[in-house]
Amino acid sequence: MEECIFCKIVRGEIPSAKVLENEKVLAFLDINPVSKGHTLVIPKAHYATYPEMPVEVIAALGEALQKIGKAVKSQLDFAGFNILLNNDPAAGQLIDHSHFHLVPRNVGDGVMDWPPVRPYAEGEMETIRAVLASAVK
Amino acid sequence: MEECIFCKIVRGEIPSAKVLENEKVLAFLDINPVSKGHTLVIPKAHYATYPEMPVEVIAALGEALQKIGKAVKSQLDFAGFNILLNNDPAAGQLIDHSHFHLVPRNVGDGVMDWPPVRPYAEGEMETIRAVLASAVK
Repeated sequence: MEECIFCKIVRGEIPSAKVLENEKVLAFLDINPVSKGHTLVIPKAHYATYPEMPVEVIAALGEALQKIGKAVKSQLDFAGFNILLNNDPAAGQLIDHSHFHLVPRNVGDGVMDWPPVRPYAEGEMETIRAVLASAVK
Repeated sequence: MEECIFCKIVRGEIPSAKVLENEKVLAFLDINPVSKGHTLVIPKAHYATYPEMPVEVIAALGEALQKIGKAVKSQLDFAGFNILLNNDPAAGQLIDHSHFHLVPRNVGDGVMDWPPVRPYAEGEMETIRAVLASAVK
């Protein structure tokens, strides 16, 4: 895509701190890190949303996330990592080119808290389950 | 694994609100939802951590996440979704059987805030980039 900032990074028109690159995937450090080593893992081809990606692209992104996740633990001083993908602006997607965040973590680092639980009303869980199960068949 | 709670769910020894099941993957509603339709997408085989999963399992999980992500938008009243994976207790992993969370989202729902940025000191970004790039080669 001509004007997409991530496509410009893939083409080298905007510099990036590259961590990994192969045929399908580019990974580079986020310039607005929430922890040190926070990495963006993106498909080189432009897909606006996650559901649009071919399965072989998802597999390639997954392999890159595995390598980088292992590296932040073995090479940097981290005990774990989160993988996050925000799909659609309602979920915090800021760049219209689907991408994963890999966020290195340590105990007590305060980087991310798990959201509070919002329990189902009686019967609501089964209603929602049935709707989703029927839709994904 | 004999005592793993997710393996027990896969074997049917503990009931679950199943959304999707195929050869490699089981998806079911989280009993502690952070939003309605919050779904866990797990490999049927036991892998304690994400880096241990074979690529074909990652691909199968990804396809399930795509289907469920589309379904929460088309069938329920949501405008987006987050995909999250917590790897290791330091990152919030509570069950020792690697799994994705799919969290349906709407604008202004207050479910998850993006963490504050923690900028790099001068030179630090390049040092970390070089360490990671070398490790994932």
